[in-house]
Amino acid sequence: MRNLRVALAQIDLTVGDIDGNTRKILENIDYARESKANVIAFPELTIPGYPPEDLLLKPSFIRDNRIALGKVVQAAKDITVVTGFIESNNNEVYNSAAIAWDSRLIGTYQKHFLPNYGVFDEDRYFSVGKNNFVFVVNGVGVGVNICEDIWYPLGPVASQRQAGAEVILNINGSPYQKGKIDYREQMLGSRSSDNGLFIAYVNMVGGQDELIFDGGSMVVDPEGNIISRAPQFSEKMLTVDIDADGVFNKRLKEPRLRKQELLDNVRTEEAKRVWISGYHPVEKSDDFTGILEEKLDSLSEIYSALVLGIRDYVNKNGFSKVVIGISGGIDSALTACLAVDALGSSNVVGVSMPSRFSSEGSITDCQELSKLLGIRIIELPLELVHSSFEETLEEYLDLENIGVAEQNIQPRIRGTLIMALSNKYGWLVLQTGNKSEIAMGYTTLYGDMSGGFAVLKDVSKTLVYQLANWRNSLSDRGGIFLSEFISIHSMVIPQSIISKPPSAELRFDHKDEDDLPPYEILDAVLEAYVEEDLVKEEIENLGITDSETIKKIIESVDRNEYKRRQSPIGIKITSRAFGRDRRMPITNAYREINNL
Amino acid sequence: MRNLRVALAQIDLTVGDIDGNTRKILENIDYARESKANVIAFPELTIPGYPPEDLLLKPSFIRDNRIALGKVVQAAKDITVVTGFIESNNNEVYNSAAIAWDSRLIGTYQKHFLPNYGVFDEDRYFSVGKNNFVFVVNGVGVGVNICEDIWYPLGPVASQRQAGAEVILNINGSPYQKGKIDYREQMLGSRSSDNGLFIAYVNMVGGQDELIFDGGSMVVDPEGNIISRAPQFSEKMLTVDIDADGVFNKRLKEPRLRKQELLDNVRTEEAKRVWISGYHPVEKSDDFTGILEEKLDSLSEIYSALVLGIRDYVNKNGFSKVVIGISGGIDSALTACLAVDALGSSNVVGVSMPSRFSSEGSITDCQELSKLLGIRIIELPLELVHSSFEETLEEYLDLENIGVAEQNIQPRIRGTLIMALSNKYGWLVLQTGNKSEIAMGYTTLYGDMSGGFAVLKDVSKTLVYQLANWRNSLSDRGGIFLSEFISIHSMVIPQSIISKPPSAELRFDHKDEDDLPPYEILDAVLEAYVEEDLVKEEIENLGITDSETIKKIIESVDRNEYKRRQSPIGIKITSRAFGRDRRMPITNAYREINNL
Repeated sequence: MRNLRVALAQIDLTVGDIDGNTRKILENIDYARESKANVIAFPELTIPGYPPEDLLLKPSFIRDNRIALGKVVQAAKDITVVTGFIESNNNEVYNSAAIAWDSRLIGTYQKHFLPNYGVFDEDRYFSVGKNNFVFVVNGVGVGVNICEDIWYPLGPVASQRQAGAEVILNINGSPYQKGKIDYREQMLGSRSSDNGLFIAYVNMVGGQDELIFDGGSMVVDPEGNIISRAPQFSEKMLTVDIDADGVFNKRLKEPRLRKQELLDNVRTEEAKRVWISGYHPVEKSDDFTGILEEKLDSLSEIYSALVLGIRDYVNKNGFSKVVIGISGGIDSALTACLAVDALGSSNVVGVSMPSRFSSEGSITDCQELSKLLGIRIIELPLELVHSSFEETLEEYLDLENIGVAEQNIQPRIRGTLIMALSNKYGWLVLQTGNKSEIAMGYTTLYGDMSGGFAVLKDVSKTLVYQLANWRNSLSDRGGIFLSEFISIHSMVIPQSIISKPPSAELRFDHKDEDDLPPYEILDAVLEAYVEEDLVKEEIENLGITDSETIKKIIESVDRNEYKRRQSPIGIKITSRAFGRDRRMPITNAYREINNL
Repeated sequence: MRNLRVALAQIDLTVGDIDGNTRKILENIDYARESKANVIAFPELTIPGYPPEDLLLKPSFIRDNRIALGKVVQAAKDITVVTGFIESNNNEVYNSAAIAWDSRLIGTYQKHFLPNYGVFDEDRYFSVGKNNFVFVVNGVGVGVNICEDIWYPLGPVASQRQAGAEVILNINGSPYQKGKIDYREQMLGSRSSDNGLFIAYVNMVGGQDELIFDGGSMVVDPEGNIISRAPQFSEKMLTVDIDADGVFNKRLKEPRLRKQELLDNVRTEEAKRVWISGYHPVEKSDDFTGILEEKLDSLSEIYSALVLGIRDYVNKNGFSKVVIGISGGIDSALTACLAVDALGSSNVVGVSMPSRFSSEGSITDCQELSKLLGIRIIELPLELVHSSFEETLEEYLDLENIGVAEQNIQPRIRGTLIMALSNKYGWLVLQTGNKSEIAMGYTTLYGDMSGGFAVLKDVSKTLVYQLANWRNSLSDRGGIFLSEFISIHSMVIPQSIISKPPSAELRFDHKDEDDLPPYEILDAVLEAYVEEDLVKEEIENLGITDSETIKKIIESVDRNEYKRRQSPIGIKITSRAFGRDRRMPITNAYREINNL
């Protein structure tokens, strides 16, 4: 029986931290060797971290990454190591995987398909790889390829199969978006069954600026079944015994797999076949049948992504504590709750900054929230500064008729106060705005938009409510299952915060619905316009609301690009987040509503 | 004699303004027809404007652009029209040129080489074109290609020459950077003499967010001489009679041109050859020998770029007036002066916001500057608000030992005050920070960094001084030559502003050199690190300063990416501007100085 023990190192890397990433690789090699794994595979661009962006234009960065690869190759003793690195060769730069064994570099595979859409810019940096590679270890043919490569039916998987691959190691830096794991599983299921081979898919985990990598590494058998799956959003070494004889059996039974011609005309070069000497048979063992973690449901998944995003941004940027402006509203309550789950109560400070427009309820809700979350709260009343601004600007403002200029004073005082605490104590400011308001520009630049990291930037207001309710329901469900993340249990967001109508409290008796359509309508239109790029006519056909409301929403989204361009980065959870994912010009005279 | 009269429409377009751009195209067609031009060529992506960024992902945008093309084709009567548009074809999208004659679409050329580096993201949107196209008008073979295409010796120019092109029309959206016009001329000179043909190069003019298109359209003869050149930074119809017989003569004399094999293996398809019926001979006329504008010297060029950048950003975004915080320092003085040259004195408002740390000189310098520039100045003293902030934050700040937290209060008050005026009166805030300080993070987020457009974002402090001195010297030189831009003459920046040592005035007796290396050293190191990506060792070898200073500068640049990410967009003038041109991760543990 040809058994191959594969270890998939689902680890959290830091962009640029070549030393730290390399140490982590070396530790994991040792750990896998102890499990008698034949092969260990690491995520895409393991050594530099992913995505390194314009660090890739620095010669020193590429050189340092190459030096680190030398250490990894050296450590490849009694185990075959597959690791991601930046390869430079004849002035071309590749996103590559190195295959090392017996302290030698056996070969490299250069990524064929470079994503250059959405959040990806790989054509900016890398040349297209054309080589193929199958290595034989323990008598089992193993093909290596990288992330995007596996999404193409006529890509390197087909060539590698023809060259004898029975197992594909696909190494990934695949960013999270809600529900994406289902697409991946479906695609991997087709790819493995179409080609009659195992696929071992390893993804990184962790946050990098706007992106979350959600892990969920897995092994798929030649019938397309997921036989093992790592948890999402946490580190894990997934070690699985793969019965390669199963591949031959499957192929004998399905002659189509042998007859099929290789259609990948673009990449006809036959895959290089390299025998890795040193046969290290391992007996198939019950210890390595592979765990099969449940996938998270939708809200758990999003909540976990946000928690991981906060924790990694804070820690990787050298902060330990965060500070949050607590208004008594739902956005800041959820942000604080997420921060506590990410960092612990003692690392979260709330600032309550009541103004003349704050309702009594807001103030008591702040206190109640801080009690439930167990966080310190600092109170800084606005009135003194507010009235001194009014005095200074007396000639220029109209204090009888409060408009945008007058309203914005208040959030900008809050921005200055919270930044003073941040500067003084080194606390990172978490910005609390949701996607609905950032879409509409219903935010004040340099006011409530101040902060280093915008936790809810890609979370619509209606989703904010769902997440808050879900988090409050955790105790009912036993308070389990988000495991290590969730540090506190039970009802953490006061019901009164969830129940009251949303308000920016910029005037007396102010409600968001005075200025905006109801959120369930707004969010449905925004999803259609921002995420799906539908035009007005198409949105009208969805029957969400009237034409005039749709027009106003579209105009607001278009007009407020300048604000978004200055907003802090935030965590991407949808198919189209504001930020690097949606690159609209500020100077933009296109108003499609005029053209229909 | 085969004479071809070519009109190059160097025009200013607005991204997204399909209607407005199309109107402009139609007007220019009429104008060229009156001059009896045989062909008129417009810049790259004329109809949508360039670069349209993610508007290209909107189906409605592509459809509207196609409808507008129909109108342009219709207008192509008694003249051949070459215009840029977005072509969609079998689900592929191309950056294309349409060739129209007799109200018919004769053909389209799809851009071959898509730039995807620096500020460009064309692989994100467009498919690679492979077709080639030569049309024959008045017996003269004309090849059309687009921008980047002409930079490749083995690209479409070579194929088009082989298919009989004697004149190349190269349509551009080529952004400005200092000195780039010389590179273009050198390249066009080689390309035309290598291929023995005329090149008519048309570039757009105008500002689009971070980019300036500098015009400078030109015609190069088969010997590589510039025979005609339009002015930089202003609109111009450059109409030139091209003597195509000269091409044949040149080729007879240089048999190498006929023998040379076509090496462009990638694009072997022979260019399509289309005869445009309707022979419209025009006699060569002295009126159309083509003007030959002088190129601007370096400082004039940069100054003009900044003026055009301000004017177009302000106007295209629907503003008419700007407001600028005037500190009495050189940066705000130069910004105000540029704004006056761009918009006129009556459209510029200065705000002086003196604090307890402001020197007497600063206040009088503000007054003097506003007098010289003829602008309104509003004075808003900070003290009242400043002391009320201190009272509110008393428990948390240390007012005896002023540090970063305490210092930042003051610029943030200024930010709030100037934004209040902006919100109240609809004035755009011009931010005044220079590249040296934004590189070092020597700026306050939500304070002096507040604003809609950062005029000097890519201008180093030493260049700020050079520009100020140059502008003051204009009267000495006769006050001419920047022509239409410059609305006022003579000494406009008080000498005392230029002479005094730079100071952020954040503490008493504060000088920038207390916190930063001298600017001439700082700027030399920044240029090496930011623009040229040199590593520390290489910078040390330049002999600018000591190793410790270099280390500190590099660390500051790396550490302050988060601030730059929230800064307003500004005008690119160098080979590497902060913004879309330099995409560094915020979460970035790479510190190359530790690795050497």
